Amino acid sequence: MIKGNLLYEGKAKCVYETDNPNELLVYFKDDATAGNGAKHGTIQDKGIINNKISTYFFKLLKDRGIKTHFLETVSKREMLIRRLDMIKLEIIVRNIVAGSLVKRLGLPEGTPLAAPIIEYDYKSDELGDPMLNRWHIMALKLASIDEINEIEHISLSVNAIMRELLKAKNVELVDFKLEFGRDKDGTIFLADEISPDNCRFWDADTHEKLDKDRFRQDLGGVEEAYQEMLNRLTM
Amino acid sequence: MIKGNLLYEGKAKCVYETDNPNELLVYFKDDATAGNGAKHGTIQDKGIINNKISTYFFKLLKDRGIKTHFLETVSKREMLIRRLDMIKLEIIVRNIVAGSLVKRLGLPEGTPLAAPIIEYDYKSDELGDPMLNRWHIMALKLASIDEINEIEHISLSVNAIMRELLKAKNVELVDFKLEFGRDKDGTIFLADEISPDNCRFWDADTHEKLDKDRFRQDLGGVEEAYQEMLNRLTM
Repeated sequence: MIKGNLLYEGKAKCVYETDNPNELLVYFKDDATAGNGAKHGTIQDKGIINNKISTYFFKLLKDRGIKTHFLETVSKREMLIRRLDMIKLEIIVRNIVAGSLVKRLGLPEGTPLAAPIIEYDYKSDELGDPMLNRWHIMALKLASIDEINEIEHISLSVNAIMRELLKAKNVELVDFKLEFGRDKDGTIFLADEISPDNCRFWDADTHEKLDKDRFRQDLGGVEEAYQEMLNRLTM
Repeated sequence: MIKGNLLYEGKAKCVYETDNPNELLVYFKDDATAGNGAKHGTIQDKGIINNKISTYFFKLLKDRGIKTHFLETVSKREMLIRRLDMIKLEIIVRNIVAGSLVKRLGLPEGTPLAAPIIEYDYKSDELGDPMLNRWHIMALKLASIDEINEIEHISLSVNAIMRELLKAKNVELVDFKLEFGRDKDGTIFLADEISPDNCRFWDADTHEKLDKDRFRQDLGGVEEAYQEMLNRLTM
């Protein structure tokens, strides 16, 4: 596998072409941003840990029948993935009230939800990633109604699988963000990453935050929290 | 019919009990607010015109098989309605991009939508009427999934009926807000009002605004626009 041109540089990852037109290489950076880029920083070795945690979850999900873009680990910070036509949506699955849901529903952080909530944010830096519903998604032709239904079905399966696994690690899955893409045949694959960057993980007993909220909210112990999550998953 | 206690006073209407426990009296005021109450004012005779326009639309919709809370006109500013258990949602139906949709989708005002968009706002002054999706609505137990589907079905029917009628009056139905409630048997009825207060009406040729946007945006000719809409519908 030959590392080719830089295709895209995001806030936390770089994506490179390879000599195989159907495969891309993801490089996980240590850079961290919050508040739509208003806050910048570095979380030491985050790229290494997120590559490991994402690999862990993608392998778990593959074993449970979920189609993901993960192909193989290439290096400490690099993952080989299936090239997809990405759907410009962030799919947020929520089990416990946190983040923007506190203000939207008027419920305190930590309130458990009777059933999961799914939200869609439009991936648009210019617009500030506004929340969309399924009618907006169809109007913008971001996804068809069949694709939306399939994405919701997969997202709820991912949620159930991850919650069960994390429960055994004494971690509550508060909420998380997924992204999806289509291959040439239009098959939907789970893409992006699954890490403390885009999941809220709380210790089940103390409710200590083990995710990027430590960076967002200047709680300290950011690197330690990422390492702790890796340890709980793999030790 | 005896006018009883004031049950509720809103921004544009007062609702009174009557001697019939299943019926209420609505009084249409001239008061107008915008920006979640940030802007206050009066639009002369708005209450009279909105009572007439709402009556016109409720009768039209009844003739076309839509269940509404309208029972009869009592006076210039008063309408007798069916008492309902109100669903705490504003249902917004959009045919053309305007208002908050400009920023949400990043499309210019006036962009026609290939198909209507439905949005839900949570009726909560404290929270600033945040946008919800069907998952939030279910989590808050504001409505069941069956009720959501029925509300969407009715809302699209109302849209089709109103668009067709308004086209004949040379008016474009840009978007509008509906509210629904349940009777004792759980049957869903269309409630609230249908007027230039909660609809965007544009002249089909000039795109002149014939609705509350004239008040919101200080365009002048507010009273004249309300009167013009009444004239087009009834003359």
